[in-house]
Amino acid sequence: MTRWPIPDPMARALALARAAADRGEVPVGAVVARAGEVIGEGRNAPRGTHDPTAHAEIAAIRAAAAAIGDERLKGCDLYVTLEPCAMCAGAIVHARIARLYYAAPDPKGGAVEHGARVFDHPQCLHRPEVYTGIGEAEAAGLLREFFRARR
Amino acid sequence: MTRWPIPDPMARALALARAAADRGEVPVGAVVARAGEVIGEGRNAPRGTHDPTAHAEIAAIRAAAAAIGDERLKGCDLYVTLEPCAMCAGAIVHARIARLYYAAPDPKGGAVEHGARVFDHPQCLHRPEVYTGIGEAEAAGLLREFFRARR
Repeated sequence: MTRWPIPDPMARALALARAAADRGEVPVGAVVARAGEVIGEGRNAPRGTHDPTAHAEIAAIRAAAAAIGDERLKGCDLYVTLEPCAMCAGAIVHARIARLYYAAPDPKGGAVEHGARVFDHPQCLHRPEVYTGIGEAEAAGLLREFFRARR
Repeated sequence: MTRWPIPDPMARALALARAAADRGEVPVGAVVARAGEVIGEGRNAPRGTHDPTAHAEIAAIRAAAAAIGDERLKGCDLYVTLEPCAMCAGAIVHARIARLYYAAPDPKGGAVEHGARVFDHPQCLHRPEVYTGIGEAEAAGLLREFFRARR
């Protein structure tokens, strides 16, 4: 018996998370795909760039919107290795991401199924479909390893 | 009897909101100040820049963090003409903004005293002091005028 393979965009997000860790950043990676094609990607980089907004999702969304020349990423999918925080969940709303796939839940910093639950308020003007769990073991393992090495 | 004057950073944020409207963007402006000195500013620009994250607060925070070479804006104040959304409230947390001053409340899109109430969850790892109302009439007037002209 073998495990279901990780879809390509999430495998790429995991590779980006590893690249973040190699640079001393909390390992989170993200990819925006349209009809299966990657149109933007990013990794966590707030320390190296001195930019508190430089989360993987923000970088991937900005890159994708620049690539297609539209502030709205209608019909696009976002793959990210960790449950988005309030900032990134808000950006997902603004970008009109159609489907959000995240690997590991984040009870401390997440704002989708925890904390602010950004998509769950009546005021929220766009709600993506949300899918979780694929790649969770790999994503959570990267984070555990990163924080263990710094303790 | 005359009204209390609007503090300089909020007056600057209102000027930035007017500049946004002149470019066809929803009029919101923001300024980051440290010890009274402006170290970053921004205006709403998602349409013109094809960047769904290009809110005034995000631009001001990124500019300020780049200016001081630190992802944390400890001890800094953020002045913004409208109640921050979930994305911007999340960025305020990540940047460790000490004091948030906003002019007009935003019952539809705001996430400080409305909706997701980002600072009010036990998981929220930093809560700025929040002050509201100064400049409210001017900020709300700019928004009303902007949307009336486009109807």
